[in-house]
Parts: sequence; structure tokens; C-alpha cells
Amino acid sequence: MAKKAWSGRFRKSMAKKAEEFSASIDIDKRLYKQDILQSIAYARALQKAKILSQSEAQKIIKGLTAILKGIESKKIKFKKEHEDIHMNIEMLLISKVGDVGKKLHTGRSRNDQVSTDFRMYLKLKIIETVSFITQFQSVLIDKAEENINQLMPGYTHLQRAQPISFGHYLMAYVEMFERDKDRLMHIHKNTDVMPLGSGALSGTMLSIDRKFLAKQLGFSRISQNSLDAVSDRDFVIDYVYAASVIMMHLSRLSEELVLFSSYEFDFIELPEDYCTGSSLMPQKKNPDIAELVRGKVGRVYGQLINLLTIMKSLPLAYNRDMQEDKEAAFDAIDTLKNCLSLYIEMLRKIKVNSERMDKAVRKGFLTATDLAYYLVNKGVAFREAHRIVGEIVAYCEDSNMELEYVSLKQLKKFSDKFTYDVQRVLTAEESVKNKSGIGGTAPERIKEAIKSARANLVNAKA
Amino acid sequence: MAKKAWSGRFRKSMAKKAEEFSASIDIDKRLYKQDILQSIAYARALQKAKILSQSEAQKIIKGLTAILKGIESKKIKFKKEHEDIHMNIEMLLISKVGDVGKKLHTGRSRNDQVSTDFRMYLKLKIIETVSFITQFQSVLIDKAEENINQLMPGYTHLQRAQPISFGHYLMAYVEMFERDKDRLMHIHKNTDVMPLGSGALSGTMLSIDRKFLAKQLGFSRISQNSLDAVSDRDFVIDYVYAASVIMMHLSRLSEELVLFSSYEFDFIELPEDYCTGSSLMPQKKNPDIAELVRGKVGRVYGQLINLLTIMKSLPLAYNRDMQEDKEAAFDAIDTLKNCLSLYIEMLRKIKVNSERMDKAVRKGFLTATDLAYYLVNKGVAFREAHRIVGEIVAYCEDSNMELEYVSLKQLKKFSDKFTYDVQRVLTAEESVKNKSGIGGTAPERIKEAIKSARANLVNAKA
Amino acid sequence: MAKKAWSGRFRKSMAKKAEEFSASIDIDKRLYKQDILQSIAYARALQKAKILSQSEAQKIIKGLTAILKGIESKKIKFKKEHEDIHMNIEMLLISKVGDVGKKLHTGRSRNDQVSTDFRMYLKLKIIETVSFITQFQSVLIDKAEENINQLMPGYTHLQRAQPISFGHYLMAYVEMFERDKDRLMHIHKNTDVMPLGSGALSGTMLSIDRKFLAKQLGFSRISQNSLDAVSDRDFVIDYVYAASVIMMHLSRLSEELVLFSSYEFDFIELPEDYCTGSSLMPQKKNPDIAELVRGKVGRVYGQLINLLTIMKSLPLAYNRDMQEDKEAAFDAIDTLKNCLSLYIEMLRKIKVNSERMDKAVRKGFLTATDLAYYLVNKGVAFREAHRIVGEIVAYCEDSNMELEYVSLKQLKKFSDKFTYDVQRVLTAEESVKNKSGIGGTAPERIKEAIKSARANLVNAKA
Amino acid sequence: MAKKAWSGRFRKSMAKKAEEFSASIDIDKRLYKQDILQSIAYARALQKAKILSQSEAQKIIKGLTAILKGIESKKIKFKKEHEDIHMNIEMLLISKVGDVGKKLHTGRSRNDQVSTDFRMYLKLKIIETVSFITQFQSVLIDKAEENINQLMPGYTHLQRAQPISFGHYLMAYVEMFERDKDRLMHIHKNTDVMPLGSGALSGTMLSIDRKFLAKQLGFSRISQNSLDAVSDRDFVIDYVYAASVIMMHLSRLSEELVLFSSYEFDFIELPEDYCTGSSLMPQKKNPDIAELVRGKVGRVYGQLINLLTIMKSLPLAYNRDMQEDKEAAFDAIDTLKNCLSLYIEMLRKIKVNSERMDKAVRKGFLTATDLAYYLVNKGVAFREAHRIVGEIVAYCEDSNMELEYVSLKQLKKFSDKFTYDVQRVLTAEESVKNKSGIGGTAPERIKEAIKSARANLVNAKA
Repeated sequence: MAKKAWSGRFRKSMAKKAEEFSASIDIDKRLYKQDILQSIAYARALQKAKILSQSEAQKIIKGLTAILKGIESKKIKFKKEHEDIHMNIEMLLISKVGDVGKKLHTGRSRNDQVSTDFRMYLKLKIIETVSFITQFQSVLIDKAEENINQLMPGYTHLQRAQPISFGHYLMAYVEMFERDKDRLMHIHKNTDVMPLGSGALSGTMLSIDRKFLAKQLGFSRISQNSLDAVSDRDFVIDYVYAASVIMMHLSRLSEELVLFSSYEFDFIELPEDYCTGSSLMPQKKNPDIAELVRGKVGRVYGQLINLLTIMKSLPLAYNRDMQEDKEAAFDAIDTLKNCLSLYIEMLRKIKVNSERMDKAVRKGFLTATDLAYYLVNKGVAFREAHRIVGEIVAYCEDSNMELEYVSLKQLKKFSDKFTYDVQRVLTAEESVKNKSGIGGTAPERIKEAIKSARANLVNAKA
Repeated sequence: MAKKAWSGRFRKSMAKKAEEFSASIDIDKRLYKQDILQSIAYARALQKAKILSQSEAQKIIKGLTAILKGIESKKIKFKKEHEDIHMNIEMLLISKVGDVGKKLHTGRSRNDQVSTDFRMYLKLKIIETVSFITQFQSVLIDKAEENINQLMPGYTHLQRAQPISFGHYLMAYVEMFERDKDRLMHIHKNTDVMPLGSGALSGTMLSIDRKFLAKQLGFSRISQNSLDAVSDRDFVIDYVYAASVIMMHLSRLSEELVLFSSYEFDFIELPEDYCTGSSLMPQKKNPDIAELVRGKVGRVYGQLINLLTIMKSLPLAYNRDMQEDKEAAFDAIDTLKNCLSLYIEMLRKIKVNSERMDKAVRKGFLTATDLAYYLVNKGVAFREAHRIVGEIVAYCEDSNMELEYVSLKQLKKFSDKFTYDVQRVLTAEESVKNKSGIGGTAPERIKEAIKSARANLVNAKA
Repeated sequence: MAKKAWSGRFRKSMAKKAEEFSASIDIDKRLYKQDILQSIAYARALQKAKILSQSEAQKIIKGLTAILKGIESKKIKFKKEHEDIHMNIEMLLISKVGDVGKKLHTGRSRNDQVSTDFRMYLKLKIIETVSFITQFQSVLIDKAEENINQLMPGYTHLQRAQPISFGHYLMAYVEMFERDKDRLMHIHKNTDVMPLGSGALSGTMLSIDRKFLAKQLGFSRISQNSLDAVSDRDFVIDYVYAASVIMMHLSRLSEELVLFSSYEFDFIELPEDYCTGSSLMPQKKNPDIAELVRGKVGRVYGQLINLLTIMKSLPLAYNRDMQEDKEAAFDAIDTLKNCLSLYIEMLRKIKVNSERMDKAVRKGFLTATDLAYYLVNKGVAFREAHRIVGEIVAYCEDSNMELEYVSLKQLKKFSDKFTYDVQRVLTAEESVKNKSGIGGTAPERIKEAIKSARANLVNAKA
Repeated sequence: MAKKAWSGRFRKSMAKKAEEFSASIDIDKRLYKQDILQSIAYARALQKAKILSQSEAQKIIKGLTAILKGIESKKIKFKKEHEDIHMNIEMLLISKVGDVGKKLHTGRSRNDQVSTDFRMYLKLKIIETVSFITQFQSVLIDKAEENINQLMPGYTHLQRAQPISFGHYLMAYVEMFERDKDRLMHIHKNTDVMPLGSGALSGTMLSIDRKFLAKQLGFSRISQNSLDAVSDRDFVIDYVYAASVIMMHLSRLSEELVLFSSYEFDFIELPEDYCTGSSLMPQKKNPDIAELVRGKVGRVYGQLINLLTIMKSLPLAYNRDMQEDKEAAFDAIDTLKNCLSLYIEMLRKIKVNSERMDKAVRKGFLTATDLAYYLVNKGVAFREAHRIVGEIVAYCEDSNMELEYVSLKQLKKFSDKFTYDVQRVLTAEESVKNKSGIGGTAPERIKEAIKSARANLVNAKA
């Protein structure tokens, strides 16, 4: 059992089981780089505050740099009895540079240290998540462009509703993910606040230059209340919430991939290398990846509830319950990364079953609304026109007939406003072309939307 | 059973039970004003698009204005068989202005209509929530100012840690709520997008000027994809998420109000008119309001899960499941309003038990860290100093003694660096004064924080 | 402002806003009958303990009986300033019978009183829920019997897998709901424990005969620890959990109703009187009821999280946070009742589209597994047989051909074990007939399952 | 890339990333023993059904037994490209015993196989969880027995309410955990149903004797509907729900351990070897284990929401989303095991601070209710008595005096019913002794409760 850095007042060493239970090194070792970079900057700040001499600071910085290399080259192994990444690195430093290493922690608490590491890490991961989304949007936009003129039935209530362009459908997801990125960037702003210098809870008594530290560590702002700084996990929950919404969006897309690749819809074909078979049924080609992505929404919702539950009713300032925050966030980060990177590949390879979509768009009275507007244009009030077309549809269903096959003579029985030009409004192409308001499914509109979305992607990179 | 506006193709009227189950009028009647204002603007847009003549538009607008008055003067009662607020108002309009009323719905679907109403309403409520938070912050700041020099023990792990100012403690919550407002204002920006003109899912074929509509209705932007516009409920979930975090913050404050007003802590006294007694135990004065606010965090978390569950795996575009969104959001809105408005009053009236806080801050080795820094200043490495003071504390505990009563002679047994000036660092006042870095608990820092927070409040109003 | 029963030590009356916020009468008035019956039994117990004389007890019982009648005939209105149902009834009693009414509360606390009322109510509602489920099972069984020989494709991963009987499919839900009832009856057992006599937290000092009380109130057991008795809400959470699982089951069924009534599947037709149309699209017939039921799963999950959050970290014994439990449970009770009673009617009326199902079962290589077993029977190892049939399926897909149309000659190219008798195993009817193990989809097995399920329903009633 | 067992119809092998994403071997390897035992029993059943010859069955069983040994001696490593534990073992078997191994999967699908393994595993783990709870109860009962006569303040609303025995307090938790065990045993019953023989979804066509299989594998019942059998995860969710309630109970206890070991309460002392210090503050002794256990309630709630979300709206039968169920359940199992086993040790070692409890029980008007009953015994109606004592308490608070120091003369000013014998009722000991109804805090009652609880523990073992 290793002697703990905090054990001065303790007569007994920690019970083995308790030590294992409370150790977080298996989880927080991910923060090794942030922790070392932070300590290097902190050594400089201690030097600036004349708490370390120049040579002491140099020694420490050299030691830390060596540790970083040691970790990255896998030469260093962490120890569970040193609890967490912070203590592991502190112990490694002391063993490397001797007693001067014991000075590094002056004025710093694990409470502000861990929050600083975590914010540094999360800032990186937010940018990474945004980049994955951008790549995925780029695939969706390419697919949309290929399919501007590919029509399909649009659905509400999973009932065929109106003809739309498959390109328009794909662009709907581009819009969703654009909101997701905006949400992430806002969270980035709120994560970009440095708590270091808050001590355990009451601030630091050393003349540490916090703004200098923030600049060194790439933080735009520094926290303004030490108590809040060490108690706050809003930035973590915000991220996991944003991840939940992204996963919700992916679950909707996944549901549609499953539906659209079913025998019944058969609108798209998923790439074989993203499907699996059945150990029993030789004919099966299952959309497993889409299903797994859909299922993983539960995982991220779960982590959100995990964090919200942990923080409920916790008195200020730091409480050990909060240690669980990292595993939750890391799990959400990994899940997002895996799901997005798979979908980037998979969506690129889906095949559109044009023939099926073309056929589908001609069935199910999709242009009934257009027929009603035809009457509106002839002076019938909309509610009237709606009623008339409703009755025509009922007639068609009884006769097992699609709208376009109803003769003008028949139509006239329902309203004398119908004339020879009615046939034109009953085609899906015409219906789509006419939806030319901003945001509509008309080809020209989709082209504009694609152009504008591409410009956004470029701007985001710049 | 009323004839439905959509019933043209139906042979049977809806089952009574099904009608009652699916009707949302009891919930969405809150949107009456938004729905009428939207319809007035829409009538103008239809006129601009020459679908309504000027006199038709005038007739409709007049009718709608009368209906608005009728509702606000409680002369109009809604009918369940008209399902929702939109159909109720449409039916009222037709019965008031006749057949011309049947033209109003031209090119509009309930799908884009309801989302537009809801966004208009939520924008108002976000501003209202922000205003309640601002008022509450103002109370907290005033209390903080009164208590800049009131010391108390600061806690981590609910163990006494270091002395802090009660003013500093209160300002921690001001910081939290500032983040909450920032989150809300970001959501406001994303709610401020008009879906009207998206039709049922594919856009509108009428030459409706959506930008004109947006201007009329006070929207800054218009949606860019009709399919997404009617399928999207991100703005609702975002609000309920923000409400969850606010309630989480309030639950932490509530927990501390309960703790601090317990017999054991006894730091504050809650106003009698915000407490209740027991029907059995005559002596009880219970912090019921704080407990209820704490408990209501569950309610809002629940609504968040409600919404996230509903949206999981829903295919595009609109599905009726989404109707449940309004009740969830309204419940979160009301809960926030009630909790915040109660706390504005209650916190204003809490009494600080100065004597108890003053006494408490002198017990529990709160200045042990300062003692360690004393040694650091004398050249001892921090980890060494920490160990030495840890042993002094253990000695004190065995002797049942507070730190300030340990004699210099005794201290010297632990380290020869201790000299006569050590006594000074053992007082809470000195400890607090020394935490003078930005964000620290030193009085001067709190004064600055108060000044800056007040400036923020004023700016927010401007 | 009414004088509170607990206000002896208070100088100030409660703030109006606080009173309204904390009052629960609008919610807990549902418990009026339980509260009165409890009080009647309690008066008897007080008489038995000689705390009330016989005439006092009679007076109180008469008063309470009159109040019950007054409430049920809507002559009595509750008052918000009397907080909750318990205080309202106590005040009504005092105003009716005078000072003797002030004795009724002797030895009883609202803490044990409310838990007793709630348990009495919930026991009733559990039985009611079970009865709704039984009725629904009965409808499902009838439908299953009608459809024993109606084949359809069975799905895994929403891909066509093997032929099954539609009756078998329906019986799967009967099984699920059987587990739900079992879970509910177990919860009933745990709810059937009387806390009355636990006082506020420490028990009662009066010689109240708790077993006598339990017998009067129909409880099978009495609680064994007063502190636990007033702190425990497990029975409520258990119910809301059971409701969550029931709603999850209903959400799966609802999803399938939506799928199966879509244009693409078209296996069933939902009754028109349980569907709605679109205000814009005249042709739409939307499965709104199925969607609403599916969406309401979120509501019940939300209430579960609500309760679990409330109870997290609450110290013993009663805390006011727990007041929120009733609204959560009542909401779950109502949701279940509404959803189940609608589905009882709706499922009875769904129409099976036989022609479509018959056609569907012949497409999608549903008998590929049977073909593999054909080879197994001829001595091929299963994994070999699986591989061979997988290749035949691939060949069919390339040739755009169903399995039954592959010639023997062709088959022999894949394996020489195929002989003339192979055709027989390729029909859906044969495939289904052969699944004759217990739990299989063979008609004889379904008949047995129906018989056994019917017997269970009868036993449950007995 | 390994050839998959299901790959007959596939032209492309799985994408590396997709393979890694969908592989579950890292998680489900825990089921290795169940999977092998199942396969051994299945080989016997295939022999019984004459699908395997005796020598074939023997060969397979011998092979499987060797694999089991290989795994347990860590000689066997699993491969990610073999996806899951089932395929890994099948591949190991084939490589060990040759082509005969390819026959083992005859008539079995992973869908029924995985559910059978999981149920076997969970049955074990339920019993293990129950055993941990029993051990923990045993510790609590021992502690309770030691503390029957140790008084402490009982709390409601965290305000001192009435004197109770610390033993009574501990026994409240014994009751809670008794309910938890009952819930678990009921879940055990529902888990103890064998799905094997359900095939992929429609049942098996082989004459497999399912009852023989169930007997071999220790199942009491077999599933009755093949479709339900492979779609059902109720048993998993039930377990994670039960775990959530147990963790909720532990969170309440943890909260009290934190409170009671705070400086302010100081009722108990946590064992040093279950506490940690601060890296900054030398005096700190933090209740980290209690906090971590409290925090882990979030984790288990999260897994519950995870599972409920996954199952929402999933159509029958098996969908790949369901693969996530195991990680969720295993995490709950481990969390429970860790928390319970730590608490078994830690609670055994807590020290009661008798002096502080004794002192506390004398402060805060804890016997005010007893004083009211004194008046009731003298003929005052309870509501009257409550009011009078309330006023006495208010008077005491103004005079900063405890109840027992109010002179008889003073008391008489509030009511002339007070006589010299009043002093007796004001002691905590008397108050506790009088709560002698069943479930009350009187020593005799606690003794009975302890005796009865111990008898339950013994019966449970028997």
C-alpha cells in the first residue's frame, strides 16, 4: 500500500477494497496530457510568483516533459494505489526530480486541477465532435446533390403524404446537424473558462497570475468565483446533453435506414460490409449497424440522467460523487465518435433503389393536396376543396384506383370546376416543382440549400 | 359529434373515447393569442399573395380580433370536439365571418402552424424565465453585499474545509444563474426561427412571402428545410434541458437551505411565512418550501426524459406522438416560474445567524491549510508542509484541542520553522483576507464581483 | 387566510404564494374516500383504546359519513388554505361535529395517514389496471383464434425472417401482458402493508390496536418499523415502474400497428373511428391513436425518473419533497387506463388484410432456413447447409427470383443432396406446420396456447 | 478477417470498423460458462432427438469441456472477429473437434441462445446480490442490537422531531433491504424461464425435448411463445430496476453517513481506512466511500433509462439494439456488488459518538409531542393540546430555553391541566419507552424486531 500524499493526519492506510473502489486512474488516465501541460504552465506561474526559482521550475518542467514522453511511448505504467492521474503524475515527478517535485502542488488543489484538465480535454473533444459532424454533413450533402431529382413519398404519421425529393430529405438531416454543431460551439464557449487558481474552494493566497496561466493553457476566460469553480459541472452535463440530442437525431435517421432497407419499403440498399447475416437463417442481410446506432441513444440518455442525478441536491463545494462525471462524459464522447465515423462511411455507400422510389411516388394519393389547390385556384375556398378531394379519394379507394386514373367526367361529378388541365397537377414532378417557397422541396430550392450548406461547411473550417 | 375539418374521406366519425384521448385543447389553449396573431399575419400574407382580396383579408382579421377579445374576456368557451386550439379558432372564425373563413387555412398545415405558435410562445417564456432569474440574482447580490464580512465555514465533502465569506457563498449562485441565463438566451436564438410556410412537410406552392410573415411575427430567421421544420422539436427539448439545469442548481441551494436551517448547523433562519408546522409535533418549523423546490427537480428531469423518449427513433416528418411536447414544456415553464418567484421572496427574508457562523468558523481546523502555507513561506516544500500540519491536526484531535490553542512550543516539536508570528495565520479573518486572487473569497474580491454582477444585470435589462 | 391546525408556535401566517405552492388538495382530493374510511376505522380504534367514548366515536363516524356523502354529491367544495385532503376533511368534521372532532387526530400524523390513504387507493388501482389488461388480453386472444391459419412474414431486424401465424404474433403480446399482471400482483402484495400507527416517525404511544385497524381497512399486514413506514415510497415507484414496462410493451405494439397499417406493409386496416385526417392533405388517414399511445411511453418513463430523482439521497424520515409522489402515480394510473381502454376497443375492430399477408409470406426467402434443414436431414452439417443455402439465396437475388422457382437442376449445382422432394419444404404452410415444439408457431401449438391463456384469464377472475 | 458463420450469401466481408463496433465479445465473454453448459445440454438434447449420434455428442461434449478448462486457465483468448462469445466458442469447438462441431448449432439461433445464457447468468447474480444484502442486513442488525438503548434525535424535514433509538434507525434500513430481497426473488422467478428451443423467432422444427433441456439447465419453466421469447428483455430491465431501488436506499443511507459524520452532527465516526484526505487541506478526513456510493445511484438510474429507451417502440422479434442490454446489466451487477461489499465492511466499523447523541437528544423540543399527549390524557382534545404546546415552544424559543427547564408555574400559564407529574414526560427515555406499539421505537419492540429479522435471515439461507 503506497503512502498517500494526503495521509499526514491518518493513522491507518486505506482499506484495499476502498482504495480500489475509489481509484479513478483507469478512467482519468485519458487526461494525462492535459494534466502535464497544466503542471508545466503551473510551474511557470509559480516561478513568476517567486515560489519556485528558475532552476527549480526548469527541473520540474524537464521532469514533466520526460514523463509525458514516457507515457506516450508506453514506458510508464500507472498505479492504482496512487488513485488518479494527478497523484500518479505527482508521484512520478517526485521520483524523477526529487524533493523539488513536492513544491509543484503549492496552492493548487485537486479540485481546481481536475476541473482544469477536464475542461482542456473537453474543449478538444468538442472540436473533434464538430469535425465528425461536418464530415458527415459533407457526405449527406453529396448524396443530396446526386438525388435532387430523385422523388420519393414524403411521410407524416408514416403514411404517404406528399411527393418530395430524396435530396430534400437528406438535407433535413444536414439542418439538424447544423443545430447540433451550433449547440456544441456554444458549449465550447462555456467550457473555455479556467478554474485553476480557485484552490480547494476559497481561492488561492499565492500571487499566482491566473490570466498568465489562462493564456498559457489557451483559455479565453477565467472563473470568477472559487466556490462555484470547483462545484460546477454544467459544462460536462451540457456536453452529454448535446450528445443526447445528436444521438436522438441519429436514432431517427437509423430508424429510417432500417425502414427504407426493409423488404416492404426497399428504397435503399445498405452496403454489405455494414450488414451482418444470421447464424440460423441463411437468407438474412440485417441492418445491424443502423440498429446498434439506434440502440446507443439509450446509452447516452442514460449518461445524461446519471449526471443529472449525481448533481441533484449536492451541497457546495466539491463532493466525491462528482468523480463519476468523467466516465459518463468519456462514454458519450466515444459513442458519438464511433457512431458518426461509421455513418460517414456507411452513408457514402448506400445505394438508392430508383425504380422503387419512382414507383412508390405514384401510389397513395400523394398529389391529393395539389388537387385541392387546383380547386382553390379556381375559386373554391380551401376547406371546401379539401372536402371535395377527400370524397374523391374515398371514391378511389372503393374503386381501388389511383387519383391519376380518375376520368375528368368522374371528377366533374364531385365539382364542376375541374377542366381538362387537371391531369397536369396530378404528377409528382409537378407537385415537387411547385413547392418553390424557401425551404420547399422544389429542385431549385434544394440546389440553393446545398450551395448554402456547403458554404457553411467551408466557413466552419476557416 | 362535430364534423371535423379533415373528414372529407371518412365515412365514420371519430369514436368518442378516441376524440377525448387525442384532443389537446385543454393543454394548447394557452397558445390562443399566438395562434390568432399568426393567423392575422397569415391573412395579410395571403392578401399579399393575392389569394385573399383586401376585403376578405379585412373581414378575417376583424373576425380574429373579435375572437381574441372574446377569449380574453372569457366569453368564448373552447370545444373538445374541435380537437385543438387551431381548429377551435378556425371554427369560431367560420361561424363568425362565414365562408370566407374557410380560405384562411389555404397553404397552411397544422404541422407548421403549431410549431410557429409554440415558438412564439416559448420565446416569450424564455424572456420571462430570464427575468425571474435576474430578479433572483438581484436578491442574492443584495444579500451577498450585506454579508461580505460575515464569515462561515466553507465545505467540501460536507466537512469543514476553509473559512469563506457568506457573501462569497451567495455569489457562487449568482455565477451559476448567469450561466443559466446565457444558456436560455442561446436557446432563444434557436427558437427564433419561423417554420410557417413549410406546409405539411414539403413546403408551400403558394407565393407566400415567408420573410414578410417572419417580420410581422417578430421572427429573426425562417426555417430552411420544410421537412426538418415540421419534424423538429429541438427547441422544446433545449428549453426543458435548460430548466433541468436551473432546477438542479435550485436543488443544491435548497439542500443547503435545509441544512443551514437545521438545528445542527443553525446558520440561517427561514422566514416563518415560508415554513409550515406539523399536525402532530407542536414544536416543528419545517423548511417545506425549500424541500418542495428541491423535490420539483425530479419533475423537470422527468419531462426531459419524456421528450427525449418521445423523439427517439421517430421517422420524419410530423408524428402525432409529438403532440405531448406542449404539456411537458408548459409544466417546466410553470415549475420554474413558481420556484423562482417563491425564492425571490423567501431569500430576501432569510435571517443570518451571525453568532453561530462566527463560532463555527473557529472550529474544525479550518486554517490548517494556511498553517501549511506558513511553512511553505519558510521554505518547506508544500507536500512536506502538508504532512507536518496533518500530524499537528492528528495531535490536536487526540488532545481535543483547536489549532489556535496549540502552543508555539508544541508546534516546534513538529517543525522548527514555526516562530512567534504563527498565531496570526490561524485566524479565519486572515485566511479569508489572503484569498485575494481573482475569484477568491477576500472581501475586496467579493466587492468587485458584486459590482461586476450588478453591471451585468443592468446590461441585461438594457 | 385560514388558521392552520399546526400553527400554535407560529407568529405569522403563511405567505399566500407559499400556501398555494405547497397545497396539494387539487391533487390528493382523489383520496377523499380512503381518507374518510381510514378516519372511521381510526375513530373505532380510538374508542377501543378508550381515548374516545362510544358516543364520541359515533358522533365522529356519523360526521365523517355525512362528509363522504357531501363530497360524492358534489355539495362540498375543498379549500386550498386547508392544504390537503386530510386537513380539509378534519376541518369539515370539526365544523360539523364541533370540539369532539379535534380529538380524531390523536396519535396520528399526516405522515402515516397519507401513506395509508395512498396504499388503500393504489391497491384498488392495481386491481383496476390488472382488469384492463385482462380485458385487452381477451381481445387479443379472440383475434389470435380468428387468425391461427393466417400466415404473415415474421421479422427480425425488421427484415423478413420466417413465416409465422398472425395468431402466434398476437399471442406474443398476451404473454407480455401476463408478465405485466404478475408484476402488478406482486406489487399489490407489497402495497398491502398498513403504516397507520407509525405516528410521525417513532410509533405511537397510544394503545391503538394496529391489527384491528388493519383488519378494518382490509390490509393483510402491518408495517414493522415506524421510521421506515413513513419514509418508504417503494410501493409507488414499483407501480410507476410496472406502468413503464406496460407502456413499453404498448409502444412496441403501437409501432407495429403504425408499420402494419402503412402503405408499404398494408397488413392491417385500423378502424376509421380511431384514425384522423389531415387539415391540409385530403387523402390522409393517420393512425393517431397508435401514435399517441406510443408517445405516452415517454410520459410514464418521465414519472419514473421523477420519483427516483425525488427519493435520491433523502434522509429519513418524511421530507416534503415526497408530496410530489401522488401526482406522478395518478398520472401513470390515468395514462394506463386511457391507453388500455382505447386499445381494447381499437384492436377488436382492426381488419386483417389477408390477401396482402398471404402474398407477403411468399416473398423474401422466408423458407431458406427450412431448406437448410432439408440438407441437415440428408446428413449435411448445419453450418455447411447454412453456407450452401446462403449461396443459393445470393444466386436468386442476382437472378431476381424467389426460392420456390429455382429448378432442381439448379439446386443440384449447389449440393447433390437435393432431390425431387425439396419443393415441399419451400412453402410457408409447411414451414409453419413444422414449428411444432412448445412455443412454436404451428397451428396446433397456437391452439393449445390459446386454450391455456383463456384458462388463465378465467382463473384470474375467480 | 475471419470468415463469418453467417456469411454464405455475402460477397464482401465486413468493414473492419463495423466489425469492431458490432462485436460484443469484450462484454459478453462473461457468459462463457453459461454458454458452454448450455451447449453441452443442447448436444445431449440433439442426441436424444437423434440428430447427433452418441459418439458425435460425446465428442462435442468433450470438446466443450476442454474449452471451458482452457478459458478458466486463461489459455484461451477470444477473437474480436468472431463477434461474440457464442461464435467464439463455436469456432473453438470446430477447430478442436472438426466438422462434427458444425452440427451443434442445428436448430438453435443466437436469439434463443443468448437469452438462455443471459438468464442463467442473471439467476446466479440475483442470488449473489441477495446474499450480499443478507450479509449487510446482518451487520446492520448487529449494530442495531448494540444500540438499542442509544438514543438520538429522529428527524423529519431534517428538523429534530422526536427521540428515537439508534437501533431503531438502523432497523429501518433492514426493512428496506428486506423489500429489496423480496423484489429480487420475484425477479428470479421470472428470469427462471428457458427460451431455448424458440429458434430465431418461430420455434424449432426439430423434435428437441425442451423440458429435458430445462431440467438439464436448472430452469423451472420454459417459454410459451417463441416470438415473445426472443424479443423479451423484461427480466433484464426488472433487475436493473431492482438495482436502482437498492442504490436509492443506499443513497439515503450514504447521505446520512455524510451528515452524521459532519462536524455539525458528529453522531458517528467513519473508519479511517474508509476515508480519504485532501491533497491541499491537511486536516481533512472525507467520507469519500459514502459519497461515491451515493453518486453511483446515478449510474444505475442511467442504465435503467438506457434499457427502457432501447426497448421503446422496437418491433418484434429480435433487433440488434438489444445487444446493449448486457453491458447495462453487468454494470449494475458490479456496482451493487462493490457498494454492498464495501458497506458490509465499513458499517461494521463505524463508531457511535454516544456523548454527542445523548446531548443532542435533549435539545430541540423533541418531547413537545409527549407534552401534548400529557394534556390529552388530562382530557384536552388533541388539536387544543397541540396549540397549547405550540405556544409553549414559541415562549421557550423567545427565552432561549429548552422545554425541560420551563417551570410548572410557567406551564400553568398556558394550561391549568399541568401538574407536578409533567416533568417525567419531558425526558427522551420516557418518550422512547412509550412508543411501544408494533413498529415503535421502544426498546422492547426493537428487540422483537431484531429477533424476527434474524429469524428471516436464517430462513432465507435455509
